[in-house]
Amino acid sequence: GEYGDKIACISMGPAGEMKMAAASIAFTDMEQRPTRHAGRGGVGAVMGAKGVKVIVIDDAGTKMRSPKDPEKFKAATKEWVDGLKKNPTTGEGLPSYGTNVLTNVINEAGSYPTHNFLWGRFEGCEKISGETQAETETSRGGSATHGCHRGCIIRCSGTYVDKDGHYITKQPEYETVWAHGGNCGINDLDAIAQLDRLDDDYGLDTIEMGATIAVAMEAGIAKFGDAKAAINLVKEVGKGTHLGRILGNGAAVTGKVFGVERVPVVKGQAMPAYDPRGIMGIGVTYATSTMGADHTAGYAVMTNIMDIGGSVDPLKPEGQVELSRNLQIATAVVDSTGMCLFVAFATFQALLDMVNSFYDMNMTADDVVAFGKSVLKNERDFNIKAGFTSEHDRLPEYFKREALPPHNITFQVKDEDLDQVFNW
Amino acid sequence: GEYGDKIACISMGPAGEMKMAAASIAFTDMEQRPTRHAGRGGVGAVMGAKGVKVIVIDDAGTKMRSPKDPEKFKAATKEWVDGLKKNPTTGEGLPSYGTNVLTNVINEAGSYPTHNFLWGRFEGCEKISGETQAETETSRGGSATHGCHRGCIIRCSGTYVDKDGHYITKQPEYETVWAHGGNCGINDLDAIAQLDRLDDDYGLDTIEMGATIAVAMEAGIAKFGDAKAAINLVKEVGKGTHLGRILGNGAAVTGKVFGVERVPVVKGQAMPAYDPRGIMGIGVTYATSTMGADHTAGYAVMTNIMDIGGSVDPLKPEGQVELSRNLQIATAVVDSTGMCLFVAFATFQALLDMVNSFYDMNMTADDVVAFGKSVLKNERDFNIKAGFTSEHDRLPEYFKREALPPHNITFQVKDEDLDQVFNW
Repeated sequence: GEYGDKIACISMGPAGEMKMAAASIAFTDMEQRPTRHAGRGGVGAVMGAKGVKVIVIDDAGTKMRSPKDPEKFKAATKEWVDGLKKNPTTGEGLPSYGTNVLTNVINEAGSYPTHNFLWGRFEGCEKISGETQAETETSRGGSATHGCHRGCIIRCSGTYVDKDGHYITKQPEYETVWAHGGNCGINDLDAIAQLDRLDDDYGLDTIEMGATIAVAMEAGIAKFGDAKAAINLVKEVGKGTHLGRILGNGAAVTGKVFGVERVPVVKGQAMPAYDPRGIMGIGVTYATSTMGADHTAGYAVMTNIMDIGGSVDPLKPEGQVELSRNLQIATAVVDSTGMCLFVAFATFQALLDMVNSFYDMNMTADDVVAFGKSVLKNERDFNIKAGFTSEHDRLPEYFKREALPPHNITFQVKDEDLDQVFNW
Repeated sequence: GEYGDKIACISMGPAGEMKMAAASIAFTDMEQRPTRHAGRGGVGAVMGAKGVKVIVIDDAGTKMRSPKDPEKFKAATKEWVDGLKKNPTTGEGLPSYGTNVLTNVINEAGSYPTHNFLWGRFEGCEKISGETQAETETSRGGSATHGCHRGCIIRCSGTYVDKDGHYITKQPEYETVWAHGGNCGINDLDAIAQLDRLDDDYGLDTIEMGATIAVAMEAGIAKFGDAKAAINLVKEVGKGTHLGRILGNGAAVTGKVFGVERVPVVKGQAMPAYDPRGIMGIGVTYATSTMGADHTAGYAVMTNIMDIGGSVDPLKPEGQVELSRNLQIATAVVDSTGMCLFVAFATFQALLDMVNSFYDMNMTADDVVAFGKSVLKNERDFNIKAGFTSEHDRLPEYFKREALPPHNITFQVKDEDLDQVFNW
């Protein structure tokens, strides 16, 4: 291209140009494809509002940064790499099946939202599971194990190709497969891959778009399970038709415009692939996260469902607030390093040693916790100045009213307990 | 009809059925026409959500209420009626020209928002003024003086007919003529009357719809001044097309969907026919009213422009907070009587005497002020529980940034002063 091959690009698409609330920012991967998105929060609309189409980065005139204490850094890195490789999730599960390994797990747990959060199990799960996805990829000549950036030792991504072996998209993540698949009653991996690709091309958040299409389906715009209709709806967004303008502004706006009352959003952002009634810890994170419903801000699914980092019953309100609080603090720390969140599967001490040796610092575990809290406090202060109150740290009412099959359970964490998440 | 002639109807239209944010509730007038609307706040959507299409009221089994002290009530009523008849506004201006008498007044003051609040004067004002409107009505065989309910002694309404003398709609109010007219660059009274009628038939708030169409015009959906396009846009709402669904949900949603940044709303509700930069007292009311931008909640225009109830320079921030506060308290009282707000042009004491003699009470002026404050406090408490904060008691940023011609002035009441409105 015009700027050579040794570049990286940060760009927005038509959705960002139209300043849509679901607009993402794309980052190029190692193959120079714009497949890695800062998906959530509508950040693409910020680029659109500023009139910035793309930022091209090359390394001219810069040099590789070096650790202040190379010996210690090397030792810490080794321990950290070993930790990730030994861990069954980052060493085996994620490389083999990607994040989509979760489809069967969450469905089995009865907390897989389908038909716009109506039920907790989807009968078409097997057809879109990580296992099926990996087999489909490898049998067609794609790949089920692929890194999304240089130096990655987990390589949880893959390459999704069509029946003739032609590239369609990078391996869709669990949340994407859920959003465009199970949540819309769609059990067709090829259609889901096409939806993922369209989202990437237009610069759209896959979670928000899938959740939005499910709301549109509830409004009668299309039928649950109709993959062709779903593809057309995303194309409407790319074209910027009136319907597309509505959908591209996400589930909250779509629900409002079509008068739908069951809209799974917090602070205007759609919930991801875990029903908060069946995994109450993630419900606490959805409700209280500063950026709206977001699983990554405090991934309680880990402890609620996989018994990692302890064990807290997903179907009971007890212990969820403390769990979400601790995870939100830890996540704020990991996010501040700029590293992939999956590094949390290694020991925290190894990560700390890496940071300390790189910058010649002496942060203790206590320092790190204090730092995480300060990040969350800054975010909360921003929200307060933007007019958010504890009334916004709530799930939509219907999650307290409608019981989710198969456990037939409502969200049971009390409002006053939600208000204690940031009261440490 | 099915229920006879001695009935009154409270109904919602297609907009309410579609649960649109601009949906109104219509009340029949003396001619059984559904021309009198509870326009603002989207109340029609509440009927829609509850599945109530119409409430039919007859007086079977009821009798006329009687005052507890008939002598005193009669005397108070006489004084009150005399007060309204003697007052130049309620005795002459309103009966002759209706509320639309304000078009020339506000335009002359340079505070008449046009082209989506871009300028403070509209060159087409003469063609849509109350004077022109009254002359058009009477010359065609309509009427420029007509009461909207039994017993009215002001009769500020009228009957708008087409060139052949056929009824189109009740006389459009100033705010309607502004919203569908001047604010959209439209100077055609017949088109405005048609828009008013369409709004009434679909059950839509005229202020919100006019403000929304101006935002849509800024988005490029139609051209400013194109009356035919504006009529078609309202018809889209009635049909419930995708575009209509957007517009029917008001200016805030329309601005969001089309990525427009200049959207004149507070708490999601569109501003009426007075630019807050040119009439800063009404700006304070827009910002702090519990139901969003609303001129009726504390009509500072009276004192800022007409020197009624004192005199406060509209182009200076000084005194506006106190003015708006006192008017909001008084308005809460008048609204609680169920009487038309225009009764405020008579003496307040006469109104108080009427209420006291009717109910055999002894409310003093101080009691009434305390009562008004308690109403506002209840409303504020409701809002706080709904998640509103002082950050929502603000005008959109651009009113502080963009100077309004011809006075080339921005809104200058400080945030910390706005926060004192309810600190009595």
